[in-house]
Amino acid sequence: MSLIVDRRDLDFVLFEMLDAGRLAERPQFAQYDRAAMDQILDTAQALAEEVFLPIAAEVDANEPRFVNGQVEQPAATGAALRAWADAGFFGLAFDEAVGGLQAPWTLYTAATGMAVAANTPVTNYAFLTVAAANLLNAFGSETLKRLYLPAMIEGRWFGTMCLSEPQAGSSLGDIRTMATPRGDGTYAVRGNKMWISGGEQAITDNIVHMVLAKLPDAPPGSRGISLFLVPKMRVDDDGNITGPNNIALAGLNHKLGQRATTNCLLNFGEAGETIGWMIGEPNRGLEQMFHMMNEARIGVGHAATMAGLAGYLHSADYARTRLQGRPADSRNPASPQVPIIRHADVRRMLLSQKAAVEGAQALCLFCSKLVDDAATTTDAATRERAGRLLGLLTPVVKSWPSEHCLEANKWAIQILGGYGYTRDYPLERLYRDNRLNHIHEGTFAIQGMDLLGRKIGADGGETLREMIGVIRQTLDGARAFAQLGPDCARMDSALAALESATRALLACQDPERRTANATIFLDAFGHVTLGWIWLWQASLAEARLADPALSEADRLFYFGKRQACRYFSLHELPHAVARFALCESLESPALDCAPEIFGE
Amino acid sequence: MSLIVDRRDLDFVLFEMLDAGRLAERPQFAQYDRAAMDQILDTAQALAEEVFLPIAAEVDANEPRFVNGQVEQPAATGAALRAWADAGFFGLAFDEAVGGLQAPWTLYTAATGMAVAANTPVTNYAFLTVAAANLLNAFGSETLKRLYLPAMIEGRWFGTMCLSEPQAGSSLGDIRTMATPRGDGTYAVRGNKMWISGGEQAITDNIVHMVLAKLPDAPPGSRGISLFLVPKMRVDDDGNITGPNNIALAGLNHKLGQRATTNCLLNFGEAGETIGWMIGEPNRGLEQMFHMMNEARIGVGHAATMAGLAGYLHSADYARTRLQGRPADSRNPASPQVPIIRHADVRRMLLSQKAAVEGAQALCLFCSKLVDDAATTTDAATRERAGRLLGLLTPVVKSWPSEHCLEANKWAIQILGGYGYTRDYPLERLYRDNRLNHIHEGTFAIQGMDLLGRKIGADGGETLREMIGVIRQTLDGARAFAQLGPDCARMDSALAALESATRALLACQDPERRTANATIFLDAFGHVTLGWIWLWQASLAEARLADPALSEADRLFYFGKRQACRYFSLHELPHAVARFALCESLESPALDCAPEIFGE
Repeated sequence: MSLIVDRRDLDFVLFEMLDAGRLAERPQFAQYDRAAMDQILDTAQALAEEVFLPIAAEVDANEPRFVNGQVEQPAATGAALRAWADAGFFGLAFDEAVGGLQAPWTLYTAATGMAVAANTPVTNYAFLTVAAANLLNAFGSETLKRLYLPAMIEGRWFGTMCLSEPQAGSSLGDIRTMATPRGDGTYAVRGNKMWISGGEQAITDNIVHMVLAKLPDAPPGSRGISLFLVPKMRVDDDGNITGPNNIALAGLNHKLGQRATTNCLLNFGEAGETIGWMIGEPNRGLEQMFHMMNEARIGVGHAATMAGLAGYLHSADYARTRLQGRPADSRNPASPQVPIIRHADVRRMLLSQKAAVEGAQALCLFCSKLVDDAATTTDAATRERAGRLLGLLTPVVKSWPSEHCLEANKWAIQILGGYGYTRDYPLERLYRDNRLNHIHEGTFAIQGMDLLGRKIGADGGETLREMIGVIRQTLDGARAFAQLGPDCARMDSALAALESATRALLACQDPERRTANATIFLDAFGHVTLGWIWLWQASLAEARLADPALSEADRLFYFGKRQACRYFSLHELPHAVARFALCESLESPALDCAPEIFGE
Repeated sequence: MSLIVDRRDLDFVLFEMLDAGRLAERPQFAQYDRAAMDQILDTAQALAEEVFLPIAAEVDANEPRFVNGQVEQPAATGAALRAWADAGFFGLAFDEAVGGLQAPWTLYTAATGMAVAANTPVTNYAFLTVAAANLLNAFGSETLKRLYLPAMIEGRWFGTMCLSEPQAGSSLGDIRTMATPRGDGTYAVRGNKMWISGGEQAITDNIVHMVLAKLPDAPPGSRGISLFLVPKMRVDDDGNITGPNNIALAGLNHKLGQRATTNCLLNFGEAGETIGWMIGEPNRGLEQMFHMMNEARIGVGHAATMAGLAGYLHSADYARTRLQGRPADSRNPASPQVPIIRHADVRRMLLSQKAAVEGAQALCLFCSKLVDDAATTTDAATRERAGRLLGLLTPVVKSWPSEHCLEANKWAIQILGGYGYTRDYPLERLYRDNRLNHIHEGTFAIQGMDLLGRKIGADGGETLREMIGVIRQTLDGARAFAQLGPDCARMDSALAALESATRALLACQDPERRTANATIFLDAFGHVTLGWIWLWQASLAEARLADPALSEADRLFYFGKRQACRYFSLHELPHAVARFALCESLESPALDCAPEIFGE
């Protein structure tokens, strides 16, 4: 059994649920038939299991060190990334025109997920490089693309995103890094950037930073931010490195988890001139950055999901073999001990993990397919609709797994008991790694504001109604299966509560009160989304379970889907109803609390 | 502001809520008037802030090491414990007759809590020594008490509890350690013990192990377990150390948190004879151990609470000073940034922590007072009633904080954002430390079985009805305050749901189905208990708020209690109702899942 992927389930989501095999009907994906996809997934799985997983504990225990202004880190990190790059995974989803393999984003997400499940912090370097390369590809000049893109797509140079500063984390409008024109079309970049993952490392010869900075005459706030490409090492017109660009590593952060990923404080332009090149248009840096935000936020939610999945698979494996105690109906102490999976509470903790991680994985892949649909369907209306739904679901796919797959990791530790609390098993590491996902790429609270303010408030709930229409279609299909009756009924209640809460929130004229429970609204809307994913999966399963010729393995698989759907509707959906009721009340006792109330 | 205690709140719980000042009316506590209590609390606070807190990060980062069969650990750990012992805290709650200070357990809990909030893993050595000394004091022979008790009460020798073995963690009936009579009233002890906190250390000259083992002719299972005192070093009749007792340290566990506490695998009697002395009666070891279990389990829940409290106070302090972003109703980017406590979602996260940790602290102290009442009230009926309620609430006080004060730590990290994820702040350490509390001294699942099986099932719900009566009394008092109307209504619903679920569970004849959701029932019952605690606190607050002469500081304090009560009833109690409905349904989709369903 693999400890990082359940290929049966991944295949179910890709090919039975999302019909990803039909992506090959689109001209740009013509070479990605099922066989080609399987081969890429096989390659990713082999690398994940044989290269990324075996070093995960080692690179966690040997955190990168700051020595004389440089980074020292285990060679294993760079070696794994080299293998990943050599297999073509950095460039998997880039167009052939820029040296990529032109695969669907759906396949990219599924394939990279296995390495992420094995060793998130090492894959972060690739994740950030792809994100930076995407930005460069979308908005960079032909010259910049010619000089930097091939090295990034081949994984020879890595990329970073330099957004935050010590005084500007969530509040990017307050950045102070300045970009002053040098008169030759380039800029002198000066300032301090904080929380830069991969900002320095001991792996590649050059690092391509995507830096947010302000022009001297920029308007205040987020409308005055521009985007710059700032390389660690300067290059000549042929792309050869000519010398340092005066970016100083001021220190490394020491984190709870994701330790193999360096996280840096960088000083630009203090020890000498740091030169940057503008990407796209002046003062539109944040907007351009947000252009790539959907993919980045899916990536964070997907990382949370994969940590959850790895914990689930490991704890299930343990529960099948660890002997402890006796069943509730046979307490004879002279009888042999049984595998702990026989205990109802252990199975409940496994089913709760299964519902969270398999549901979240399906959501991540659904959203990745929306990325493909928004980019490559021929019909303009379909493209726009995919883009709208993707925008609405982005805060959900970022946040729901960050909350509930972290919870899954908590229960995975619990199944192993004391062993799960030790560093001899990967559960505590997954739990530490996963805790970051609610924080980076926009905190939980920011996702809530994004959903309620930008995604629902801005169009008066129109896109939300469209999504509810999609959900109702699944629901109406599910009603055909008697077995799903109770689940449909609970979904009806949750949808009614969502609609009612949304009406109340949209009608509220006080912006602070309207958004005071935005995080809770987001979490509850995430539950509705997951409830829909599970009804969708369960409907497919019921259709298959009606087949008397089904193999025993398939019968168990689809029965598992039925039970996970039931678990989610029975154990989880009522909590969404309670949360929506709270939002609808517009009550928020925290709003009336003076700062002095919290502590002496 | 203290980062480990809110003395205003602690005083409120002790003296306004629990009327602890009146404990001095009992003859054995005559010297503990309010002034004496304040002095002891002051001393504990000073030691916690000046000795325990400053070394917390250091002893976490420098984990004890296993070197040539010995432990190496930072000297700071032993020095802090020496100061704690010198101030009399090991013996605070022991009778004067055995060298203690004969203080109420309530005061002991409140005082030690401050050191626990500052540095749980260092205090664990004291916690375990007191637990072992309590067992010895309750069941040991006069000779054993004379030889070992003074050194333990003075903190010169530490104690441990040796229960688990590699094949017997939660299932103690399956231990294999053997105790064979040597013919002189002593026993030769042989076997392996696992997860022994403080099992070896570099602090005291001797370690007094309380070891569960089986006699050669013992019946199988938990009815065949006896308790033995097994010292690391043998002593002569005057208590002088004479030589080693052949207990070998086989290895240290490397844990997620609580790193300053050694956690050991010990081999007894393999390298030579290990001699033990029986404590109490043959085959009654587990029963005797359980005699002290209430205190130990309150201790674990209290540690979870204190980690939550420390995180709450730290994140509140940070939120008052960290500048970031602007209020929802004034987004002008040219205006200065505001402290993040101005943001509604930050205040919500603070109020959620306040509700969890202040509520849990009050519950821990209420249960500690029940320990005092069960031991020292003159009226036998009152004593028995205190014992019954304590038994019922023990699984709650152990589990609820382990779940919800860990959650509080999660939100404390979130308030600090990226900073909270670094080891430059204590939040991530508190989160790591806290994760243990659901595991040791009986897992969450075991607490659920204890509540539903032993505490409710065994007497047909009689003690539960008694507790509900206590709650209804508070509720009826609260109805006098119009302000608390909505809170009372929500509490009514939660109580009705509890009663209805209990009826359904008690009527269920299938033991596996009855207990399949026991953990969820426990969590929901915990919510009802906390809801009661909050109504109690809010009623006291409303009475005070009616006083027009109240100082501004007091007005804010009591207003905070009102808001926390409202938060709990509005945000939390509806989830308990949903959980009880699930329990009442007797549905459990996990029960029907074959092991193969979980993963490939």
